[in-house]
Amino acid sequence: MKIALLVIGVFMLTATMTLAGKPASPPAGSDVLLKLESDFEKATAARGWDGFAEFFADDAADLQNGGPIVNGKQAIRENLGQWAPGMSLTWKPVKAEMAASGDLGYTYGTFVFQTKDKEGKPVTHSGKYATIWKKQKDGSWKVAMDMGNAGQ
Amino acid sequence: MKIALLVIGVFMLTATMTLAGKPASPPAGSDVLLKLESDFEKATAARGWDGFAEFFADDAADLQNGGPIVNGKQAIRENLGQWAPGMSLTWKPVKAEMAASGDLGYTYGTFVFQTKDKEGKPVTHSGKYATIWKKQKDGSWKVAMDMGNAGQ
Repeated sequence: MKIALLVIGVFMLTATMTLAGKPASPPAGSDVLLKLESDFEKATAARGWDGFAEFFADDAADLQNGGPIVNGKQAIRENLGQWAPGMSLTWKPVKAEMAASGDLGYTYGTFVFQTKDKEGKPVTHSGKYATIWKKQKDGSWKVAMDMGNAGQ
Repeated sequence: MKIALLVIGVFMLTATMTLAGKPASPPAGSDVLLKLESDFEKATAARGWDGFAEFFADDAADLQNGGPIVNGKQAIRENLGQWAPGMSLTWKPVKAEMAASGDLGYTYGTFVFQTKDKEGKPVTHSGKYATIWKKQKDGSWKVAMDMGNAGQ
């Protein structure tokens, strides 16, 4: 009987631990978001707007300064236009914070966008950005919303 | 012995239920965020920038278009300046989404800011915004980050 009690006790303890551990997936931290930001930036450096747009969720929104809210990955890519030679977009997150559930987080920081004007002269736009990162159903992370404005 | 077993079983079952229920607070939805947005807007209508700034967390950031990242509730309030007669700021969220853990959410949408120029003529600025809402340690909800840009 003592063994039966022990077996039941261990079983219930295991059940307790399993149930207790289930609702809260391990809280992922800002390191996850900062890695995403770094990958996002590298993809942009490598493949321009194609690399940039790849990081958006299918139902994402892009809130560019001076324009309307652009909804959907495809529309966002089209709205970005052509990645011309000499363009570069780099950014630096100053904050990254994740929800306790590890499925939603945000970053914000500063960016520098270098391009050329119609005469081919280099132009630099410096600004701020905020990005919402959302874990997708397949476990991948995508941008749910990206927004930029002027001034650092 | 059967009674002892039952008592232990019931105890462990209770412990299981308690532990299982603890980590996951009921997932709050977008309705919570939309209510906050509404309260935020009402406070601004009633008390101008004082009402607006009250909704920011002590360690919040404000990313206004054309300016630097302003950190901290007090600095944010000071940076907003004076709420002049005739000013109004209204907004309309188009999306509100909460993390599964119910402790972090975001909204974005459009705003209309009405003010007067130096000659006293009415001026209207239309734009977009994004707000990060974060549940504080005391259970209240505050703005962790607010950002605006131009164009709707």
